[in-house]
Amino acid sequence: MATTTKTGQAFDRASLESVLKRRLFYTPSFEIYGGVSGLYDYGPPGCALQTNIVDAWRKHFVLEEDMLEVDCTMLTPHEVLKTSGHVDKFADWMCKDPKTGEIFRADHLVEDVLESRLKGDKEARGQKIEAKGEEDGKKKKKKVKEVKVVKLEDEVVKEYEETLAKIDNYNGEELGQLMKKHDIKNPATGGDLQPPVAFNLMFSTSIGPSSNLPGYLRPETAQGQFLTFQKLLEFNQQSMPFASASIGKSFRNEISPRAGLLRVREFLMAEIEHFVDPEGGKKHPRFEEVKDVELALLDRDVQLSGSTKVTRKPIGEAVASGLVDNETLGYFLARIQQFLEKIGIDKTKLRFRQHMANEMAHYAADCWDAELLTSYGWIECVGCADRSAYDLSVHAKKTGAPLMVREIRKEPLQIEEWVAEIDKKKFGPKFKKDGKTVETAVEALSQELREKLSLDLKNEGKISIAVPNVGDGKVELGSDLITIEKRSRVEHTREYIPNVIEPSFGIGRIFYALVEHSYWTREGDEARGVLSFPPTIAPTKVLLVPLSSHPDFKPLVKRLSHKLRAIGVSNRVDDSNASIGKRYSRNDELGTPLGITVDFQSVQDNTFTLRDRDSTKQVRSTEEKICTAIKNIVEGVETWEQVSKRLPAFEGQQLED
Amino acid sequence: MATTTKTGQAFDRASLESVLKRRLFYTPSFEIYGGVSGLYDYGPPGCALQTNIVDAWRKHFVLEEDMLEVDCTMLTPHEVLKTSGHVDKFADWMCKDPKTGEIFRADHLVEDVLESRLKGDKEARGQKIEAKGEEDGKKKKKKVKEVKVVKLEDEVVKEYEETLAKIDNYNGEELGQLMKKHDIKNPATGGDLQPPVAFNLMFSTSIGPSSNLPGYLRPETAQGQFLTFQKLLEFNQQSMPFASASIGKSFRNEISPRAGLLRVREFLMAEIEHFVDPEGGKKHPRFEEVKDVELALLDRDVQLSGSTKVTRKPIGEAVASGLVDNETLGYFLARIQQFLEKIGIDKTKLRFRQHMANEMAHYAADCWDAELLTSYGWIECVGCADRSAYDLSVHAKKTGAPLMVREIRKEPLQIEEWVAEIDKKKFGPKFKKDGKTVETAVEALSQELREKLSLDLKNEGKISIAVPNVGDGKVELGSDLITIEKRSRVEHTREYIPNVIEPSFGIGRIFYALVEHSYWTREGDEARGVLSFPPTIAPTKVLLVPLSSHPDFKPLVKRLSHKLRAIGVSNRVDDSNASIGKRYSRNDELGTPLGITVDFQSVQDNTFTLRDRDSTKQVRSTEEKICTAIKNIVEGVETWEQVSKRLPAFEGQQLED
Repeated sequence: MATTTKTGQAFDRASLESVLKRRLFYTPSFEIYGGVSGLYDYGPPGCALQTNIVDAWRKHFVLEEDMLEVDCTMLTPHEVLKTSGHVDKFADWMCKDPKTGEIFRADHLVEDVLESRLKGDKEARGQKIEAKGEEDGKKKKKKVKEVKVVKLEDEVVKEYEETLAKIDNYNGEELGQLMKKHDIKNPATGGDLQPPVAFNLMFSTSIGPSSNLPGYLRPETAQGQFLTFQKLLEFNQQSMPFASASIGKSFRNEISPRAGLLRVREFLMAEIEHFVDPEGGKKHPRFEEVKDVELALLDRDVQLSGSTKVTRKPIGEAVASGLVDNETLGYFLARIQQFLEKIGIDKTKLRFRQHMANEMAHYAADCWDAELLTSYGWIECVGCADRSAYDLSVHAKKTGAPLMVREIRKEPLQIEEWVAEIDKKKFGPKFKKDGKTVETAVEALSQELREKLSLDLKNEGKISIAVPNVGDGKVELGSDLITIEKRSRVEHTREYIPNVIEPSFGIGRIFYALVEHSYWTREGDEARGVLSFPPTIAPTKVLLVPLSSHPDFKPLVKRLSHKLRAIGVSNRVDDSNASIGKRYSRNDELGTPLGITVDFQSVQDNTFTLRDRDSTKQVRSTEEKICTAIKNIVEGVETWEQVSKRLPAFEGQQLED
Repeated sequence: MATTTKTGQAFDRASLESVLKRRLFYTPSFEIYGGVSGLYDYGPPGCALQTNIVDAWRKHFVLEEDMLEVDCTMLTPHEVLKTSGHVDKFADWMCKDPKTGEIFRADHLVEDVLESRLKGDKEARGQKIEAKGEEDGKKKKKKVKEVKVVKLEDEVVKEYEETLAKIDNYNGEELGQLMKKHDIKNPATGGDLQPPVAFNLMFSTSIGPSSNLPGYLRPETAQGQFLTFQKLLEFNQQSMPFASASIGKSFRNEISPRAGLLRVREFLMAEIEHFVDPEGGKKHPRFEEVKDVELALLDRDVQLSGSTKVTRKPIGEAVASGLVDNETLGYFLARIQQFLEKIGIDKTKLRFRQHMANEMAHYAADCWDAELLTSYGWIECVGCADRSAYDLSVHAKKTGAPLMVREIRKEPLQIEEWVAEIDKKKFGPKFKKDGKTVETAVEALSQELREKLSLDLKNEGKISIAVPNVGDGKVELGSDLITIEKRSRVEHTREYIPNVIEPSFGIGRIFYALVEHSYWTREGDEARGVLSFPPTIAPTKVLLVPLSSHPDFKPLVKRLSHKLRAIGVSNRVDDSNASIGKRYSRNDELGTPLGITVDFQSVQDNTFTLRDRDSTKQVRSTEEKICTAIKNIVEGVETWEQVSKRLPAFEGQQLED
């Protein structure tokens, strides 16, 4: 998809990928063994960038909001994921070519084949072909290599287009029918394919030596947080609402990974589970602080109408009008946007898209995705789902653990109810072995029925109730055996299962989008790429370059490097033989925001030049002032603009070449 | 094992464990599902403590030494771990009771049974029994529940003791023989056991939908670093030596996990691979900076003599005398000690133990463990191994990738050698199909043989060389076909496979040892436990306590909390109804080093009291001065002692109860 850089240039993915590879941001894992698709390693700058994103996340969410961070295991026993629904539902549909052994993800195959036929049709009609295929970010390795120029009937075109619009919503049987109907085969060989079968996306293993405890690698960090809920609530001194958070790897055994870092088999997630009382409209105590934050919203109705036009409005309005369901959900949408902006995401390439009803995960009550625009299209990078009470309920039911909140009511609750009481002494002798069954039937009587029966008892001195499997299915009870009367009681405590609002961050996807949003090239020189990460997020903060290999520079460089580390500023020395300009160019590609040049004047008067990556402008000042300026910029206390006004500009030397 | 706290009290493990559980430092994973042995989750304080240890590690090693941090995948294909030797050798011996299905780790079983017999013998002889069993930290759940009082023959006692001393060195067959010889059966039932079989400790899975790519969860982070070596060297601009580093989870499918966090199935590691030229004595450029660091060393010879007496000496001396093999190994031992001290490990409970020759991993050339003394005995927490060129060599050999350094020689190397040259034009017609075979035989001639043959050629005009499978196995070559002469050439580049020094940190074990070393109880009140973590490492830095729930306190608490967060200091508010003393006690157990009390005077004059966890002493000053003091203490710029001399003491109020 055609996107533009922040400087308005056409974005060139190949050029960026070459930088990322050359500078070792990431690399396919096990490449010398031929690689494994969907697995990537982060090299030094990528690893540092990832660490800085995670740090920023932890500060923005965990520390700022007093969240309870936990670190749970990835190994997860079968039973837990059976209960959560993942064993049965966390699957994609795949179909196999029995001759070649090739395996296709069924929905992707149908999509690719129909799209290529539509393309062929357009060519046959002599129409212009838009690069529409990558809109949803899923396509990199197309199954269909060759587009055949064949004109289709008008109603076939319409049917294909309708099918494609709903491609995420078909189950395996429906995909099988589509394949039959549209004669979809192995695109490479034309061979028949077997019908789609479900393929569970979890990696399975077994725990312990006897292979009797089957398990999986977790598909999300959420389950560990749910299972610990009771202990976390206690840790939080029984106070609600509260949020837990977790940062860690999760796994997804993709059928055919594609699109680089966007669809991988092992990935870093950062997930928040905010536990909230389902009653009282899911208010959030800090909503007031974010209510004026303006978001780009793409709601369900707009999508249903076939449009992708976003509405920009303050989250306060969106919640007030019911567009976004509640304050807590709205609060997190705003906080997500603030986080993404803070780390350097281009706000004009961010939208919040509401899930369609049939698109949501099996547990979700409502869901908005933060999507980021990349050259692969709009990519889901953060999901923000209302999982309702689903998870806590199923685990509580399965294990009997009280995953709930018990709170003392501020106002005790006055309850009026019809109470049916039996005379146990007489009950046993009369009904013998059926006594318990009849008693249970009495207990099961509804309030309405009790009210009616109380009248019967008063009027006729006896009642008749249905008790299956006892006598003829009806039992008579006289007023000697039972009384029914209205009583009132007071309930002082309340028990409820909290609902969960879950903002869930795919760190690898955010990482990739951030890299795309940060990339541009110097005007007039496309070979000189720059990654304009914010100083707080940049892998390395300062580059130290001695003008030459002159021995007088060495002790100064060493001292500066040590001093910067001591004030917590990461830096690297480049004392290679390359020209100053080359060395700076290399570090522009690494996203290093600041550079210090050590020159002959430095040796004389202990002043240094400080260079800004984005403008390539320089200032010159004393060691102390330069170090303070750096610390301020890195900690976000000052900007380069402010520093460059404070300190004298340096233009004495042409350093860029 | 009996240890003492830093205040000289007897250490009480049960009391610490109760604190760790109550304060949710960690908890068995999946507890509501019955738990899975060897898997633990970290709760909020444990998670924060772990994060702070990792941060300190990254600063101390990665940033301070410009290491190249990478993040590689945990999923690892079979072939990689086959090459590294893990598929064949990363195993323990287990034996099964065919009747009950129970599985025992063979070495642990033999050990437990022989130890219990020795105990029974001692009792029978009326001797005092020492708590020796836990010396090596492996025992928690004993297999033998009951000690039978039976006197043994003197030579049997001697044999048992000798066997126990060597228990780590037996292979499966030997363990089987021991079990037969000493009649070792299922201790619970007396049933026969099957002979020991190897059980590989890696968790296996399969990658991709077709199950045709078997893989494992990595047993260490090291392999990913080795496979990326070539790219890292290039990233480092071909400059040697350098180190890579990685922090991440690894996995080990223990047969029977025990001793809490000390032997688990999923654990966080931090590993460094320092790549160094094997020639030139493995010098380290910064060794000078650490040479005076004194270490407690327990070398191989001392252990062989049956002693565990450590020698304390500066690492400079230890390397100079050859006790520690080389500077790089020595440098890291000193740096490891500095790190452990920095995070709060008690230096008197740290020793470096050299591995015995037969104890080292299959790849190691030398190895020293940093061991920490805990109530489970001396625990290996950091391994520091010289893996030689093993890993790079095997992967290079398997894949053909050039995992080596090619460097330009400072002094070109003058090489004199005998060169044998054939006349290819005549060679073909003469030998026809055997031409290539004869040529290969000529190329394979050693330098010595060439020298001898050159004389033959000179004297007789021909030579005779052995060429198996050609003619009668001998071939004659005349001087028309071959020349042999001494020539000299100059080699400008040198190629070598680097050696690897690997400091490998078990973060969970360090975490646990740190917790034990930090724990003590207030004098006169054993129920009041304190975890004296250094401020840099403590999970939360500051506790904010309003004197009561008076509404005037709320805005002050909120403002302070916000202000502290803004200067990067994590804090928590405790505005519960508990007394101030109780609230502080709770936070002493969480290891929170500082506390601010907001009282009525605060409302009037904006001054606050600041409390020190360890001494419970307090000072009182303005908001600004208190915040500065906190920042200084947390960043390690000032100590409490210094602050308490600067700011006026506060004794106006008895806050502890």
